[in-house]
Amino acid sequence: MDNKSCCSDMGSPIHSPFKVPNTVSLVAGVGDANNPLNAFDMALLDAGIGNLNLIRISSIMPPKAEVIPLPKIPMGSLVPTAYGYQTSDVKGETVSAAISVAIPKDKELCGLIMEYEGICGKKEAEDTVRNMAKEGFEMRGWEIDKIISIASEHVVENIGCAFAAAALWYK
Amino acid sequence: MDNKSCCSDMGSPIHSPFKVPNTVSLVAGVGDANNPLNAFDMALLDAGIGNLNLIRISSIMPPKAEVIPLPKIPMGSLVPTAYGYQTSDVKGETVSAAISVAIPKDKELCGLIMEYEGICGKKEAEDTVRNMAKEGFEMRGWEIDKIISIASEHVVENIGCAFAAAALWYK
Amino acid sequence: MDNKSCCSDMGSPIHSPFKVPNTVSLVAGVGDANNPLNAFDMALLDAGIGNLNLIRISSIMPPKAEVIPLPKIPMGSLVPTAYGYQTSDVKGETVSAAISVAIPKDKELCGLIMEYEGICGKKEAEDTVRNMAKEGFEMRGWEIDKIISIASEHVVENIGCAFAAAALWYK
Repeated sequence: MDNKSCCSDMGSPIHSPFKVPNTVSLVAGVGDANNPLNAFDMALLDAGIGNLNLIRISSIMPPKAEVIPLPKIPMGSLVPTAYGYQTSDVKGETVSAAISVAIPKDKELCGLIMEYEGICGKKEAEDTVRNMAKEGFEMRGWEIDKIISIASEHVVENIGCAFAAAALWYK
Repeated sequence: MDNKSCCSDMGSPIHSPFKVPNTVSLVAGVGDANNPLNAFDMALLDAGIGNLNLIRISSIMPPKAEVIPLPKIPMGSLVPTAYGYQTSDVKGETVSAAISVAIPKDKELCGLIMEYEGICGKKEAEDTVRNMAKEGFEMRGWEIDKIISIASEHVVENIGCAFAAAALWYK
Repeated sequence: MDNKSCCSDMGSPIHSPFKVPNTVSLVAGVGDANNPLNAFDMALLDAGIGNLNLIRISSIMPPKAEVIPLPKIPMGSLVPTAYGYQTSDVKGETVSAAISVAIPKDKELCGLIMEYEGICGKKEAEDTVRNMAKEGFEMRGWEIDKIISIASEHVVENIGCAFAAAALWYK
């Protein structure tokens, strides 16, 4: 249950041709449409990342990554992104999605991104996802500097979607 | 609900080390096997992309990308791909998957890839996915040059899978 | 149903800017927590890849890739990974996940990674996933040199997760 991925005895790290991202940007949005995928697309547009190719990742903020507002990213770019979303076709139902990032005190360590989605209000989703980030740091035995988060909430009209994401990028 | 991802005020775009793909190829296939993953694998082989590592993306055709037949891609390559698939273990049931790409009149804009899958015929899947692409362009307030699409359909024997994809690549 | 992805008539292969990985490492782990995502995160930590950004891939071992123990990979790296996992909130239930890799006799060909997860024991999961790899090679008409595999098993306490993965990397 330790951070084996960063402390094996196999010598110096092997860097890949994929440069490790050094920025993280939190965004959220909502959409409503005639089908789940268009509602999802609309929520991405609302969040400001609808014209990008999101590559879903399993949710680590690289060490020393800077938290910044979403930068200008060329359309169609491949953007490593952790995200949560909730769709529903039940009119009047409230859907929410939330993202949190726990940032470590020790700047040599990575941050942890957590996502949560549900048939619930925004506050519940955001509280939940912040607790999840805290729990993830406790598992690692690491100290938190701070937790940042974002959430969205939507009352379904036709088919609705709430979306929240942490997009990793480069500066 | 606008295309914030390409019009922020943060100065010139920040390019990532991931080169933006400049080709898109539509493929489709079907498979039938003893379990869902082998049926999926068989459908990928049938579509001509079974020996590649598909990285699922959230469905944008980069601006000016060229629509071409699937190029020769080395086995094991990491290929950004939007896809839909439907598996079923109900003998005699018809499964379908479809992909569409809405290509913009304004060549500075990106295209939109939509996927759809269901327990239905190929025509229904393809009609649906073309409408989804149209709806996505309407949301953006963009004009469509044309919509291209592909679909597959399969009557389940044991465990069946229909698959359709838009693979992004480079020339 | 053939390997069209490597035998089109479009001339020499087009290489992407993503270098094809040349190592594969099998890992597995388990976790238990208050919610599915923390249990998943804990299982990843247990497997030694909890501080990485996994990019899920559709499961091919590139030709001539070397099977090695998990190398030291910098935290936050984007790591192409095939994986399976099973979560459950039923106390006392056994969850398992397994990964296999069929390695070809012909070293110009790729290997096939299969994943399986279920409410079952580790042995059942591992036997199943090895058969799936065998079936995938039969579909391709290729001869197997050997199959390697790994599996994990966990009896759920609160919310449990079993995880198994093949991580691709570079040397």
